[in-house]
Amino acid sequence: MKKYVFGVDVGGTTIKMGLFDLNANVLEKWEIKSITANGGERILPDIAESVQNKLKELDIEEDEVAGIGIGVPGPVDAAGTIYKTANLGWDTVFNIPEAFQKYLNLPVMAGNDANVAALGEMWQGGGKGYKDLVVVTLGTGVGGGIICNGQMVTGAGGAAGEIGHIHVEDNETEECGCHNIGCLEQYASATGIARLARKRLAKDDADSVLRGREISAKSVFDAVKFGDKVAIEVAERFGEYLGKGLAAIAGVVNPEVFVIGGGVSKAGEILFEYIRPYYMQYAFRSCRDAAFALATLGNDAGIFGAAKLILDRV
Amino acid sequence: MKKYVFGVDVGGTTIKMGLFDLNANVLEKWEIKSITANGGERILPDIAESVQNKLKELDIEEDEVAGIGIGVPGPVDAAGTIYKTANLGWDTVFNIPEAFQKYLNLPVMAGNDANVAALGEMWQGGGKGYKDLVVVTLGTGVGGGIICNGQMVTGAGGAAGEIGHIHVEDNETEECGCHNIGCLEQYASATGIARLARKRLAKDDADSVLRGREISAKSVFDAVKFGDKVAIEVAERFGEYLGKGLAAIAGVVNPEVFVIGGGVSKAGEILFEYIRPYYMQYAFRSCRDAAFALATLGNDAGIFGAAKLILDRV
Repeated sequence: MKKYVFGVDVGGTTIKMGLFDLNANVLEKWEIKSITANGGERILPDIAESVQNKLKELDIEEDEVAGIGIGVPGPVDAAGTIYKTANLGWDTVFNIPEAFQKYLNLPVMAGNDANVAALGEMWQGGGKGYKDLVVVTLGTGVGGGIICNGQMVTGAGGAAGEIGHIHVEDNETEECGCHNIGCLEQYASATGIARLARKRLAKDDADSVLRGREISAKSVFDAVKFGDKVAIEVAERFGEYLGKGLAAIAGVVNPEVFVIGGGVSKAGEILFEYIRPYYMQYAFRSCRDAAFALATLGNDAGIFGAAKLILDRV
Repeated sequence: MKKYVFGVDVGGTTIKMGLFDLNANVLEKWEIKSITANGGERILPDIAESVQNKLKELDIEEDEVAGIGIGVPGPVDAAGTIYKTANLGWDTVFNIPEAFQKYLNLPVMAGNDANVAALGEMWQGGGKGYKDLVVVTLGTGVGGGIICNGQMVTGAGGAAGEIGHIHVEDNETEECGCHNIGCLEQYASATGIARLARKRLAKDDADSVLRGREISAKSVFDAVKFGDKVAIEVAERFGEYLGKGLAAIAGVVNPEVFVIGGGVSKAGEILFEYIRPYYMQYAFRSCRDAAFALATLGNDAGIFGAAKLILDRV
């Protein structure tokens, strides 16, 4: 009888692993190193070995394990095929579940880490109870995961949810890291918010608690909470760009809720005060009911979502 | 044994009906009137009666029918619940399959007409062979249908695919019909193309075969084929806006193909020459492989897609 499932979240430096029962309880959580040398050849066998060690340690039989879900930082399609990912040294196109069978003969499902994290937030996080959601990660960049009718959307080449490069400003002059101009990421990521703040401060000599401090998304939103007018102007611009971007997304998938995560989301629900009015302005009428919620699983979203990949098939 | 399926496409003036075998062959195609008076109370019973008449006429038993798929012009969620649609006089929220059982006890599935038409194009039209597609209808307005991994995306409130109101121009001054400013529909619909052409012609007195003629999407693209420079400028602007809008959509669902239908698509593959370069410019790297194809089912896309709704469940 199946009693357990593993959720694995592969990153460039560590691999997070979780052992769950079938009722969504995390029984154990640990990490192993991610060794990306030699084309990342050790990643899958290291995961297999760590799973086997855990089974031995806890005296669990292989046939009690429903499977292993794996999230990886790269484009993965619905069949678990990965289209290269420099982050892990993987430079070929291959099917992760098939490749994994060489090391351990258990059912495997794989997905892109952001998409898998979105599944985790739907299952046990900020999106719990919803079936149509968009999880937006505001970190160094802007990432996304799309869930439609309870199913993760991968896209043809595993690039669904790459919302950071949606064009949101026609009058931008600086380039995004992707070489386009006017991408959402240039305004709504942690680095984007800091960029907006630096540009605003340089514009004139208006008083601001931000002057002379390290400029970051955190210091900007701390200053907003303090009532700093310059910081509030920056938050308004952040909110307009993100609201406009989310409105475009809503025109495609009409989510019930936007779940906001990543480092920037630590500012809390105050973010919604700046995003929602612009979302309402730009969104098509029938999409304006969407709720806004904060992600709650933090760095564990990946292992939760990976476990859920398997549980959806049990 | 199940041998047949009905596909029904409900419009504001006529209801198109099709009888299919399970191998996608249309056996019969006919239309009945759409009577929207009295809150559209006759629409479902009229469909039921027409189905029963057809069964009698062809001597088909009810238990040989796998079901009836119905597409309607309004927001329908994954369960077949419709959220009001002025087009049919329906002013309450109700579940179409449940409501239909009162008149005829056969399995029913329902969906939004644009989404259902997209399913039809995937099944037997311009999107045949693809599983991740976006069907774009360029008519009086701009509509869309999204298919991810072979499944129709409805959205939480049935408004997925409402791509006509994605914001694509920050510097617009005229209002869209939805009261927003800078919507895709203002540039890429038949009326939008005519609007762009009229504005271009008014700008100066450059020679153009369009002068003194009726301005329409058709006359613009006819003039483009004739090499008319002013018309080509208009086509470039159309292509930029649509390319930019499709790039935003690609950042959400990463389709394998965009299938272009609606009246404007009668211009043919020449449209792609104007859309594709701008799509490539604005789309995120991993989404640039998307193909472009023309819709092929025309007005029959709806009955095909409606039949497919049932066949997916047989």
